[in-house]
Amino acid sequence: MPHQPLPTNNQAGILEPPPGSDSLYPEPRRLFENHPIHLRELRPLNGQSILSARQFSLAQVVELCKLAAVLEKVEITPYHPLAGKIVVTAFFEASTRTRTSFESAVLRLDGKIISIPEARITGAAKGESLADIGEMFNAYCDLVILRHTETDAPEQILGRLRVPLINAGNGTGEHPTQALADWYALLKWNNALAAPPVPGTPKLQLGILGTPGSMRAVKSFLLLALRFKDHISRVTVISEMADPFGQDLSEDLAGAGIDYAVTNDIQHHLDQLDVIYMNSIAFLGDSYKTLDARFKLNRSSPLKPGAVILHPLARKEELSTDLDDTPHNLYFSQAHGAVFIRQALLTAVLGRIDRLPNQVHTVD
Amino acid sequence: MPHQPLPTNNQAGILEPPPGSDSLYPEPRRLFENHPIHLRELRPLNGQSILSARQFSLAQVVELCKLAAVLEKVEITPYHPLAGKIVVTAFFEASTRTRTSFESAVLRLDGKIISIPEARITGAAKGESLADIGEMFNAYCDLVILRHTETDAPEQILGRLRVPLINAGNGTGEHPTQALADWYALLKWNNALAAPPVPGTPKLQLGILGTPGSMRAVKSFLLLALRFKDHISRVTVISEMADPFGQDLSEDLAGAGIDYAVTNDIQHHLDQLDVIYMNSIAFLGDSYKTLDARFKLNRSSPLKPGAVILHPLARKEELSTDLDDTPHNLYFSQAHGAVFIRQALLTAVLGRIDRLPNQVHTVD
Amino acid sequence: MPHQPLPTNNQAGILEPPPGSDSLYPEPRRLFENHPIHLRELRPLNGQSILSARQFSLAQVVELCKLAAVLEKVEITPYHPLAGKIVVTAFFEASTRTRTSFESAVLRLDGKIISIPEARITGAAKGESLADIGEMFNAYCDLVILRHTETDAPEQILGRLRVPLINAGNGTGEHPTQALADWYALLKWNNALAAPPVPGTPKLQLGILGTPGSMRAVKSFLLLALRFKDHISRVTVISEMADPFGQDLSEDLAGAGIDYAVTNDIQHHLDQLDVIYMNSIAFLGDSYKTLDARFKLNRSSPLKPGAVILHPLARKEELSTDLDDTPHNLYFSQAHGAVFIRQALLTAVLGRIDRLPNQVHTVD
Repeated sequence: MPHQPLPTNNQAGILEPPPGSDSLYPEPRRLFENHPIHLRELRPLNGQSILSARQFSLAQVVELCKLAAVLEKVEITPYHPLAGKIVVTAFFEASTRTRTSFESAVLRLDGKIISIPEARITGAAKGESLADIGEMFNAYCDLVILRHTETDAPEQILGRLRVPLINAGNGTGEHPTQALADWYALLKWNNALAAPPVPGTPKLQLGILGTPGSMRAVKSFLLLALRFKDHISRVTVISEMADPFGQDLSEDLAGAGIDYAVTNDIQHHLDQLDVIYMNSIAFLGDSYKTLDARFKLNRSSPLKPGAVILHPLARKEELSTDLDDTPHNLYFSQAHGAVFIRQALLTAVLGRIDRLPNQVHTVD
Repeated sequence: MPHQPLPTNNQAGILEPPPGSDSLYPEPRRLFENHPIHLRELRPLNGQSILSARQFSLAQVVELCKLAAVLEKVEITPYHPLAGKIVVTAFFEASTRTRTSFESAVLRLDGKIISIPEARITGAAKGESLADIGEMFNAYCDLVILRHTETDAPEQILGRLRVPLINAGNGTGEHPTQALADWYALLKWNNALAAPPVPGTPKLQLGILGTPGSMRAVKSFLLLALRFKDHISRVTVISEMADPFGQDLSEDLAGAGIDYAVTNDIQHHLDQLDVIYMNSIAFLGDSYKTLDARFKLNRSSPLKPGAVILHPLARKEELSTDLDDTPHNLYFSQAHGAVFIRQALLTAVLGRIDRLPNQVHTVD
Repeated sequence: MPHQPLPTNNQAGILEPPPGSDSLYPEPRRLFENHPIHLRELRPLNGQSILSARQFSLAQVVELCKLAAVLEKVEITPYHPLAGKIVVTAFFEASTRTRTSFESAVLRLDGKIISIPEARITGAAKGESLADIGEMFNAYCDLVILRHTETDAPEQILGRLRVPLINAGNGTGEHPTQALADWYALLKWNNALAAPPVPGTPKLQLGILGTPGSMRAVKSFLLLALRFKDHISRVTVISEMADPFGQDLSEDLAGAGIDYAVTNDIQHHLDQLDVIYMNSIAFLGDSYKTLDARFKLNRSSPLKPGAVILHPLARKEELSTDLDDTPHNLYFSQAHGAVFIRQALLTAVLGRIDRLPNQVHTVD
């Protein structure tokens, strides 16, 4: 099938870059123009529960990002990829941002939503087991999106659930679709990440402001970073914690053979970083903890020219709005793209990657 | 019209029995194979509010169960039975399980949902009358599903409501669609219940653990049991209350001429029961009361071989999970089927029984 | 294009007048029969945020009301005017009535909804700025409907929002779509309001029970009243406040050249009023205040024969239900029509006025 140009749609706001913000929203088109989507990488996701960023191969991340880029540029609703599919969003920990991001993704694919925004506090059966809730969902839907304060919640619900589950954040565990959104933003910003590194090209220095062991979004971001290790010269973790990794994560890092360092001194490292990942909140046992005041970024911070900042949002004091209109702001693109990468994942997990428009260039 | 075999759909999870759980999920197909659906029984439900299990004739329960069985086996979404119809789920008493069961039923029929999960606590107008709320709903939707802590709530809202109402639980009143789900599970388990009794066949002994007078699901179950009295040899109510019926229910029982007994001694009756219905919660005035500790079931309970347990869920301590993987577990089938029997009822009440797929065998 | 009779639909309850209540629900048909809709008046609304009743010209109000009347009589869902459009309802101040009215409007036009009924209390990010929330919504939807306790909330969210916003009530600010619903009810009641006044015809006396300066619905109603000033002989504001207008509103009144009076004496004015607008609640600083006990209406109130009462509902004590079945009750029509006038506005703002059924009589 010869590659054909994709149509743009001038009516639907999302399909054109926002006016006057080119630097904040890198163009998705270059990710798929002249780069067909390899469906054979995505087919194994059909019917799979998505619990951890560990499940994704490098090729799967890249192909999902390419599919997301297509979905960001082509109005997909008329092709009804999720027609007849019902998705439950079960949020035992409230998160309007993540829930509505998923719900928008489902609706844009013409799927249907059963929304449970405050699963924890509704219903007489507050004490009902997650296994029983999983059994119930089997008849209600074709896929469950679960957020929960307990790290072992996905495991519990899978005791009885027979439809695929997507983990939208579990305690101090993981947030794998956030990590996909993070890397989708990075691949749009630097298209070279979508291909093997060209010898001689400078590699990226990644910095993490926070504690991967107790911040699930940071942990999932780091796990996907390991897939891109050939593009990365070093990962620097800037944390007030002596050991910011848990045991599992330490093993992942050791096994990947990536060069990393830990420090609590932001001043001497910031100006060397190409990508800075930060988050506002850490889980420590049962409570939340915000980032140390030293680890705040604003327009006066000694950022490397060309460096970009990622933040899964919502933000608090740690990320000043005076950075919003600078080229360092990749977090708006990151938030914006989350809907499209989730669309890509849902299409793959629900087995509908064959329902893309004809003009999308795919190979098997 | 000659009977044609119905298609099964291998893509949508719900249309195949769950793997390895045949005993927990009796096959629905036998309810409609060689048994056409008699539409003339269902037509009178068009436009009717459903307030009580008393409203259903035996024939209507049987035909609704047959229609539910079809809907459990045939992917119905492509036929759009509820196209253009909007359903409000107004839950003044929170119940995620019942609400999402109804919402799934509406969505699978391609209807639309306006969801009010916590009607009691939202809105500035906490003191607004149900009649005013009913008046408001007239313009918003084609059908209202109401759950409320007050027994007379359906009557109040019907003061102004002009679209049909389905009672999804009203105080100590009724829960008629739960009763339909209960009997749908029993008809799938024992297909003979769908036809007049064959002389000489042993009849069923029904046991109820709980207090029908103050447990609305139990009450509605018992009211439908009266319709099946020719299949039942005796109803035994095991309750700690001296008079577990209210006056109305006592009159129903007397009028039906069914043989029943009341006891608080579970030990001497359990091993004679073919069907055991239990619930976790009773309303006593304004408060909830859980079942007495004596009335708990687990794998050590002296259950009759072949006996099945029904429970409207969610459960607490009274029903041990160690029964889940035994043939006594009919409560999973009961929960699973609730979506399909609600689909059947919605199709009838909204006047869309003529929009079934051609290959469904119907007669008028 | 010659005028063709519009079809009515006998299946969908909303398209026929409610039985036995002709006086409470004036016939919409006369607003568009022999009166084509002038699309050129509605086109400028495409892509516009709707923040204030001040934005509407007289011609726009009239054409929106005519379009609403069409939508009240013609089943529009099969024409899918909002196909592919996603609308977020973000209610930072809970209002089940307004939220579900908008959601019904979107669903009847075959748009999709992402519902955030309690935006204020959900999500970890309680402190997230409205600008950040606006940025987030850009990727999620094609239009945002916002209700908020803060008067400057629309301005804040528009700092980053690039899709149109509809203000569904902002603090003591405005409630422009409520005002459209108010005047839609009045135009159905008195079709002459849809055309320039015929010389010699008696003009209307409008009365307002309440404080426009601190009651947003009342304020927006009054602002639209200024558009209809050629039909109005006088506006009487009956309030316990010495100055019931804020400065802005006083300037509007002065600029419009309308004859108005302020009084706290309801007894001597009520029997002269043709239209009485009342509301239950005023915002005073951070708290709510109900209407003074003197300002209550019931069947014994000295109402002028033929006078009609408007009330945005929900009501409290100030409006007795004993008026519900009298010809003074226009508030049920007002509530009923709110869905259809919102449909009309959504169709215009989302640029879909060209997707009306062929038989609707339009001119450019």
